[in-house]
Amino acid sequence: MTSAMDQDIDAVLAHVDKSLDGSLARLFDLIRIPSVSTDPAYRDHCRTAAEWLSRDLAAIGFEASVRKTTGHPMVVAHEKAASGPHLLFYGHYDVQPVDPLALWTSDPFEPRMEALPNGDTAIVARGASDDKGQLMTFVEACRAWKSVTGKLPVQVSVLFEGEEEAGSPSLAPFLDATADELKADAVFVCDTDMWDRETPAVTTMLRGIFSTEIEVTCADQDLHSGMFGNAARNPLQVLSDIVSSLRRADGGVAVEGFYDGVKELPDAIKALWKRLPFDEEAFLGDIGLKDPAGEAGRSVLEQIWARPSCEINGMNGGYTGEGFKTVIPAKASAKISFRLVEGQDPQAIRDAFQRHVRARISQDCSVSFRDYGLSPATVMPIDSPFLTRTLQALSTEWQCEAALAGTGGSIPIIGEFKHRLGCDALLVGFARFDNRVHSPNEKYDLSSFHKGIRSWVRILAALAD
Amino acid sequence: MTSAMDQDIDAVLAHVDKSLDGSLARLFDLIRIPSVSTDPAYRDHCRTAAEWLSRDLAAIGFEASVRKTTGHPMVVAHEKAASGPHLLFYGHYDVQPVDPLALWTSDPFEPRMEALPNGDTAIVARGASDDKGQLMTFVEACRAWKSVTGKLPVQVSVLFEGEEEAGSPSLAPFLDATADELKADAVFVCDTDMWDRETPAVTTMLRGIFSTEIEVTCADQDLHSGMFGNAARNPLQVLSDIVSSLRRADGGVAVEGFYDGVKELPDAIKALWKRLPFDEEAFLGDIGLKDPAGEAGRSVLEQIWARPSCEINGMNGGYTGEGFKTVIPAKASAKISFRLVEGQDPQAIRDAFQRHVRARISQDCSVSFRDYGLSPATVMPIDSPFLTRTLQALSTEWQCEAALAGTGGSIPIIGEFKHRLGCDALLVGFARFDNRVHSPNEKYDLSSFHKGIRSWVRILAALAD
Repeated sequence: MTSAMDQDIDAVLAHVDKSLDGSLARLFDLIRIPSVSTDPAYRDHCRTAAEWLSRDLAAIGFEASVRKTTGHPMVVAHEKAASGPHLLFYGHYDVQPVDPLALWTSDPFEPRMEALPNGDTAIVARGASDDKGQLMTFVEACRAWKSVTGKLPVQVSVLFEGEEEAGSPSLAPFLDATADELKADAVFVCDTDMWDRETPAVTTMLRGIFSTEIEVTCADQDLHSGMFGNAARNPLQVLSDIVSSLRRADGGVAVEGFYDGVKELPDAIKALWKRLPFDEEAFLGDIGLKDPAGEAGRSVLEQIWARPSCEINGMNGGYTGEGFKTVIPAKASAKISFRLVEGQDPQAIRDAFQRHVRARISQDCSVSFRDYGLSPATVMPIDSPFLTRTLQALSTEWQCEAALAGTGGSIPIIGEFKHRLGCDALLVGFARFDNRVHSPNEKYDLSSFHKGIRSWVRILAALAD
Repeated sequence: MTSAMDQDIDAVLAHVDKSLDGSLARLFDLIRIPSVSTDPAYRDHCRTAAEWLSRDLAAIGFEASVRKTTGHPMVVAHEKAASGPHLLFYGHYDVQPVDPLALWTSDPFEPRMEALPNGDTAIVARGASDDKGQLMTFVEACRAWKSVTGKLPVQVSVLFEGEEEAGSPSLAPFLDATADELKADAVFVCDTDMWDRETPAVTTMLRGIFSTEIEVTCADQDLHSGMFGNAARNPLQVLSDIVSSLRRADGGVAVEGFYDGVKELPDAIKALWKRLPFDEEAFLGDIGLKDPAGEAGRSVLEQIWARPSCEINGMNGGYTGEGFKTVIPAKASAKISFRLVEGQDPQAIRDAFQRHVRARISQDCSVSFRDYGLSPATVMPIDSPFLTRTLQALSTEWQCEAALAGTGGSIPIIGEFKHRLGCDALLVGFARFDNRVHSPNEKYDLSSFHKGIRSWVRILAALAD
């Protein structure tokens, strides 16, 4: 790194610090657009968010545009004036639904600053962290570089999608159609957590996902349980039997063949993770729990980063309002997702799950399946120079050694970048474990946002050499 | 029966026939009041329905009043001018909630006449059958007797409650407080089905009920299933395990001690029921089913009339809207009801159920219970002269032998009449199996209403001697 570059970095960081209010104001504008991707009622808002981002990137000097898909649009932008490696930055502008709304302490789409006990400040809103706050750290870093030096240290392309929370159905075809335009030397994604409050992390291991909904139908109408109870099959009972059958007594997933191809974690990684300052008791204690669930005899970290899982994300049927209604419903449904690890074939898991369910449906019932997402797990190469330099830049900004981490979450797009563009991706995020992502009162710490912008300023410079 | 009485009956029946339109108009007015008892939002409408009935009974010549309770009010009315036995007629003016509203073909509270394939006409509305249509058959019979003869053949008291669909919480204290006023020679209830479309029935066997809601709580917040899945206990999984554990592989209820005190049906009743023209295949086929569920090796009729049952009436938890949300909810809940038969102690069943659930809650979860109703089964004496005369009157009106039936439903008040007033009750109803009671598009056949009124005209006369 040249000394001139060091001077540039200092000037850009100083600019970031003094223009933080403006950065926050822009983030708030973006958050106020309720771009919930899974609910068709918010379709127009998703487009508005895409247009807002495209305009903002154009204002910085990107060549930006909103691109149609069969679902919510993509935002694509380029700033390739500089020489050096070509980075593709990915984020998503869509957010999760807000229900249960009653548990929010303020309007989910009106960001609110809240003082935290540790002296930090939280930005409370849906999308504050996932992923609007995170993606804007990168955008603001680019803005600062352009404001101070008139250019970016490397060539940058940006891709923002609006269907990440809905399983990214349009992404694969879009990447296929734009492969020549988007192919880069490395992909950076900002949608993950820090290791802990002070330690930044680069994530190198992601679980895949198969998410689906099943609906069990018995009678052709709702029935009075007094008149038909016992004799008429109850779909809530059938559905509960199916859900209950998904886990073995030892906590493992009971779908036949589910663990086919799953390898034990290499000893080197086990040793590395053992050294990480991870406190199982505190991890569970923070969410009001004590005993780890899932597979007996495996550590919490291994279970959430490296073991496949099955979770029930929603169940519904019969009368669920105030009071009581003695009904046997005609239908009952469950939303179920499987987190997948390296070695598992998502299509085979899907087929095995459907066989498992069908084997438990009596001849009087029927079942229908509706799939929402299907993506394999991905493991990043840990010897890439992009990774080494990113870790250095993060360590400099946060003044501690950045961690190499796994994550239990699934970002299906990572597999697609590898598959469609031939690019490896690095996941650098500034969210924290207590951000209540996907829950009421989601938050992003002001320090995540501020030091996140500063981190990207340094990473862009570090990759320029 | 005197010849003068026969002439009176003919005149009253003729009056019923020619004033049917007026009877229907009054029923429609009552139906239009959305008196849903289990939802607090409808509290005022329940009071309006009570006041409507009190005014209508007063118009006939009853001494009628609306009586306060801690819940919805009671309607009490007397017409004791005549000599002879004293009858207490019971009905309920409250109705079930209407959801799912989308499955109604018209406004549930705007009654609609619909031609049926068999040439009859249906009154389609919430409460058309249960219990507004049924209770008005008795009121209209009284009105006709008073219009034509100026008096009733017997002494009549009327009790209408507004909490039957909510487990009748105010009834026991109300009966205790008004025992001297309401004590009668027999209680008549109109809230049951005919044997089949042409055959009237008097029901002599009622199941009791224990209805409850359980809520399982795991973490203290909703969680992202990617970040916490496997390690954090999922309340939907815990709840499904509990629900699944309630039934044994042979279809019996698995709660310990559930069948304590349950006697096998006497051979005489088994023989009687075998002679009834009941077609299991048609019974299930009418609701889109084929295979009887529940206890293996027992007939459908025995299962729904004489065996205890456990039904899941509602389950809810996690994300249940459009699309998908990878959440692990903090809570999940189920509404569960047990139908009870003679010999079962409701309180013991309640305790055994709670023990069953608590034994399946890990130390990381908690469970709360909310009870909605608790009443024992009742069996009517079949040698009462009130019963014999009622069967004769019904046989005359319908021109076939009236049936003595059981019912799977629960009318908790029947036990209370015996316990608080010392009165036996007879259940005479004109509803039909396909009335979609508690379901969308509930109906009451015009012939049920018309011949129901005529039946009460004859029953009142038959009891006068």
